[in-house]
Amino acid sequence: MVNETQHTCSASSSSRSDGGSSSGSESSKDNSRCSTPVHDADRHERLREKMRRRQDAGDKWFSLEFFPPRTANAAVNLISRFDRMGAGGPLFIDVTWHPAGDPGSDKETSSMIIANTAVNYCGLETILHMTCCNQTKDDITGHLQKAKRLGLKNIMALRGDPAGEEWEEEVDGFNYAVDLVKHIRNEFDDYFDICVAGYPKGHPEAESYEADLRHLKEKVFAGADFIITQLFFRPETFLKFMKDCQAIGITCPIIPGIFPIQGYHSLRQLVKLSKLEVPQEIKDVIEPIKDNDAAIRNYGVELAVSMCRELLDSGMVHGLHFYTLNREVATTEVLKRLGIWKEDPRRPLPWAVSAHPKRRVEDVRPIFWASRPKSYIYRTQEWDDFPNGRWGNSSSPAFGELKDYYLFYLKSKSPREELLKMWGEELTGEESVFEVFTCYITGEPNRNGYKVTCMPWNDDPLATETNLLKDQLEKVNRRGILTINSQPNINGKPSTDPIVGWGPSGGYVFQKAYLEFFTSSEIVTALLKVLKKYELRVNYHIVNVKGQNITNAPDLQPNAVTWGIFPGREIIQPTVVDPVSFLSWKDEAFALWIEQWAKLYEEESPSRMIIQYIHDNYYLVNLVDNDFPLENCLWQVVEDTFELLN
Amino acid sequence: MVNETQHTCSASSSSRSDGGSSSGSESSKDNSRCSTPVHDADRHERLREKMRRRQDAGDKWFSLEFFPPRTANAAVNLISRFDRMGAGGPLFIDVTWHPAGDPGSDKETSSMIIANTAVNYCGLETILHMTCCNQTKDDITGHLQKAKRLGLKNIMALRGDPAGEEWEEEVDGFNYAVDLVKHIRNEFDDYFDICVAGYPKGHPEAESYEADLRHLKEKVFAGADFIITQLFFRPETFLKFMKDCQAIGITCPIIPGIFPIQGYHSLRQLVKLSKLEVPQEIKDVIEPIKDNDAAIRNYGVELAVSMCRELLDSGMVHGLHFYTLNREVATTEVLKRLGIWKEDPRRPLPWAVSAHPKRRVEDVRPIFWASRPKSYIYRTQEWDDFPNGRWGNSSSPAFGELKDYYLFYLKSKSPREELLKMWGEELTGEESVFEVFTCYITGEPNRNGYKVTCMPWNDDPLATETNLLKDQLEKVNRRGILTINSQPNINGKPSTDPIVGWGPSGGYVFQKAYLEFFTSSEIVTALLKVLKKYELRVNYHIVNVKGQNITNAPDLQPNAVTWGIFPGREIIQPTVVDPVSFLSWKDEAFALWIEQWAKLYEEESPSRMIIQYIHDNYYLVNLVDNDFPLENCLWQVVEDTFELLN
Repeated sequence: MVNETQHTCSASSSSRSDGGSSSGSESSKDNSRCSTPVHDADRHERLREKMRRRQDAGDKWFSLEFFPPRTANAAVNLISRFDRMGAGGPLFIDVTWHPAGDPGSDKETSSMIIANTAVNYCGLETILHMTCCNQTKDDITGHLQKAKRLGLKNIMALRGDPAGEEWEEEVDGFNYAVDLVKHIRNEFDDYFDICVAGYPKGHPEAESYEADLRHLKEKVFAGADFIITQLFFRPETFLKFMKDCQAIGITCPIIPGIFPIQGYHSLRQLVKLSKLEVPQEIKDVIEPIKDNDAAIRNYGVELAVSMCRELLDSGMVHGLHFYTLNREVATTEVLKRLGIWKEDPRRPLPWAVSAHPKRRVEDVRPIFWASRPKSYIYRTQEWDDFPNGRWGNSSSPAFGELKDYYLFYLKSKSPREELLKMWGEELTGEESVFEVFTCYITGEPNRNGYKVTCMPWNDDPLATETNLLKDQLEKVNRRGILTINSQPNINGKPSTDPIVGWGPSGGYVFQKAYLEFFTSSEIVTALLKVLKKYELRVNYHIVNVKGQNITNAPDLQPNAVTWGIFPGREIIQPTVVDPVSFLSWKDEAFALWIEQWAKLYEEESPSRMIIQYIHDNYYLVNLVDNDFPLENCLWQVVEDTFELLN
Repeated sequence: MVNETQHTCSASSSSRSDGGSSSGSESSKDNSRCSTPVHDADRHERLREKMRRRQDAGDKWFSLEFFPPRTANAAVNLISRFDRMGAGGPLFIDVTWHPAGDPGSDKETSSMIIANTAVNYCGLETILHMTCCNQTKDDITGHLQKAKRLGLKNIMALRGDPAGEEWEEEVDGFNYAVDLVKHIRNEFDDYFDICVAGYPKGHPEAESYEADLRHLKEKVFAGADFIITQLFFRPETFLKFMKDCQAIGITCPIIPGIFPIQGYHSLRQLVKLSKLEVPQEIKDVIEPIKDNDAAIRNYGVELAVSMCRELLDSGMVHGLHFYTLNREVATTEVLKRLGIWKEDPRRPLPWAVSAHPKRRVEDVRPIFWASRPKSYIYRTQEWDDFPNGRWGNSSSPAFGELKDYYLFYLKSKSPREELLKMWGEELTGEESVFEVFTCYITGEPNRNGYKVTCMPWNDDPLATETNLLKDQLEKVNRRGILTINSQPNINGKPSTDPIVGWGPSGGYVFQKAYLEFFTSSEIVTALLKVLKKYELRVNYHIVNVKGQNITNAPDLQPNAVTWGIFPGREIIQPTVVDPVSFLSWKDEAFALWIEQWAKLYEEESPSRMIIQYIHDNYYLVNLVDNDFPLENCLWQVVEDTFELLN
């Protein structure tokens, strides 16, 4: 392959040297020390390197293909699916290119923006498809530049379907995928990993199977890094294809495209598009059950599992690529049956890591956005560098404004009617708000029988970890300490702990207890008196919507509240309470009262005025108990406050 | 004062703002985040700021004056005194300028180099005196540039004594200290903190006391930051002087110079030089006991203590400056009696922090140089920036060569004869070397009755912390595991722990167990077999003098082995095992066998050949037990190794 020797990241160079003199040279290369830390090869390698490393380690993997949705609502759903299916540990996902759907635009449904979301907000290694036929060089370069700008690192280079019957080759135009591969390598050097399509039965328009193999070889020799194949129905089809590829000198990874049959109609449509023929033995099974969706899906799963097993057992296949058709059930089922779906994926950090190359060193974030990571990523996307190892004295962390609360990936997944049912069609006072918070914590239905599964500050039900604090949280929310973020103290649990663990195994994770809530000025006054007793132990920041700010934090320094100690690594401290960022967060936290809650109600309505009153008068408070080895004292602080008030 | 408003470091700006809107502005200042961490105001403030902060906090302090020694041996002793007296917590020390002693040269006894050593190697805030009379502008600028280059930040600007009788004012020359102050401010802007001398009785050459006060005011208004006074014998002398200064508008700190009388002759000499008169009541006491040094010193201590108490009690004095005459006992005694000597100084980090401004952010070092911090500082002095928060992936830490083993501040404090008594006049085999190591550990006399109080790798007796491991260390050294560095595991002891504590109070400190030793290839072979059992728990690096290197460290990443968790701070990890730096350290560690030990013996002598054999054939090994909450397994590793060998 052309670029076999051009790999750049040398961070994970060989760690053992059992012989030979390697002492002198290291110390004389450079005038000063270099300080790019490496702590997770997975985050620093490019896709082709990850693939090779998995293959070398005999580690089987899978990838998932999605197409861009038609509507904004479908996009919100697809992104949730990315989060859920991403948890299973795909090596990458890919997003197809729909020329008819304005694929390079900024629309929330475009291929470009969906791939951007997968990379930046869901932290998934992503391949963006791109077709070239009927497009100008400038258009294509523009798309590639945009992809690069957004942090996309992998392109699937395709010809695409010619529009209309009378398509003719253009001189110097983009007539074939190979032209696009060459163009990418010419214009972007080695920046992108390039994938191309292989056709186990030969491309339907190719003169012959052999001619098609030669075209494939051209694409690879023009600079493609690996091949994903069109779907096929029999394992031997793929294995023969692979051998034929190798025979003519194609040595890059070839990944079989797996299509679990999920329904009669989708199969027929796909077959029509791909001009493949369904083998008779499959037709024989499917025709009699064609009206029974469940039966067809079960059969599809069976068939896919047995084919995948045969491929993996051949020893020639290390990864499987799934055509999901944007559905979850069948693919997940196949992956689970194959044992390559990661039930309990190891989190490298306690929050989801973004896959943008600029953010690859990022390993510290303020705790405030713990439940709104997409908002954090959005608001910091313009940063030139990201905190790494240490948050530092962020005297000027320039958080972007979060003006458009309906930015689609920050939009509530629930429609207005549902939110009203959860948060109250009509509020009668601050107490009705306390009730909503309490129901969210307890998981009990509210007075109208609806469960409160999300809040303006938490789009998902309570985290498992927060469940550890459930009883205490319920008690305080009932009394008007409206909690939006919290974590228990942890004094050295194994990094593999199913609830609080993260990072490589063999380590220990720690936390300081944290509690963040809105509350009335009356409670704040009492709280401040109580906090005097805890001055040396508890750090606090208390701020209202106008920015009145009370704190005992020394010198505006950040306080590390989550950290991990690992074998052979430096300390990692992924979460901090940063006093300066807190002021950016408070704008967002207060605004959510209005944007997500108050605006559900008519202007001037009592319900809206109640939320507005809270927004205008309550304080946002955060508390850290620094003495992590002792029992969390924050509950006592709150208890003392209530006592003082009585 | 002129430069009252020019303070630069804004890191420790006010942390509380109990009112007023401060939210919006923070987030819009800059395009990206800033990440200069602040974790120890003491390390980041300039001297005048430290002084002001101490005064504001009502915190009394002291400083110590030394003069440059005459010989290299005296310099080695003075540096040890810096280390010992530095432990008492002076706010600064100052080094006088001896025009006759080539004060700006690179000689190991020059004022410049002594001050450099105090700052860079002993981590002491230091003022370098500088006189100006009879010097050219270029000379002076050269001295100042050199001082700046070496990391000196404070100058005591003096006129100096005119050479010869017929000194005359030069037009445009440096005739008075004020000329030097102006020159420093002109040429170096606000870089230096400038101190000037005050004369409580008036300068002997001044026309009058009042005229001298006006000269002092000129020096302050020309840019001096504070005043240190000439010695005086009665507290009222100083207090009157201070009031007179304030009356004419001198508002900067004025620090009384305290001279504890230490002997009859030194007093007489000083009085002669300073042209002061000893009050009759003092003469009356001293004359009768003038031949009893101890009695005079006791009286001197009494007198100094009572005078200092009166000064401090006046409320006008916050710091005391001691003319030590390069002696320890009297000054230390006075300071202890006053209660301002810090018996157990809080270490900001587990190693002594260098006071060079370039190193002010430094807070991570490789553990290898733990017993040779001066060597580490020397070898990294050319670095442009220092690790901070994280060591990083130091693929090319360019350590300077340590060619001159007789570099004076790295020289053994003991002369050759003493070393021979400790390490053996004649070695009979490797076992005699084992014995030396064992005696160093146990503190027992060797077979010739001499205690081994230092080793080539450890210039001081065993650290208190290492004492925790004494029994184990003794056992393994007897058998040829020749330990040169070790630390026990610590699972969260209070940061105020007298043995292992460091950093601000209220925190917790942690360590991974560490063991570093030389040993034979036979033992290494067995050790490697044993280490297989501990693969997931113990990281090791094993290297011989030729650089053959065996390790299981992943990706050449550093391993944090000391860290601390503090209230309201980020995590600090001051010590790491860095695989790359280890290779630079091993050159030094192996060379010390030859340079410090082998060369004590005649060439070709059996003793020398034994050390040479060890140098050529032994391995340097380091082991880290990553599982810090469990009992240290490294002793078991060594035990298993010996068992395997038997």
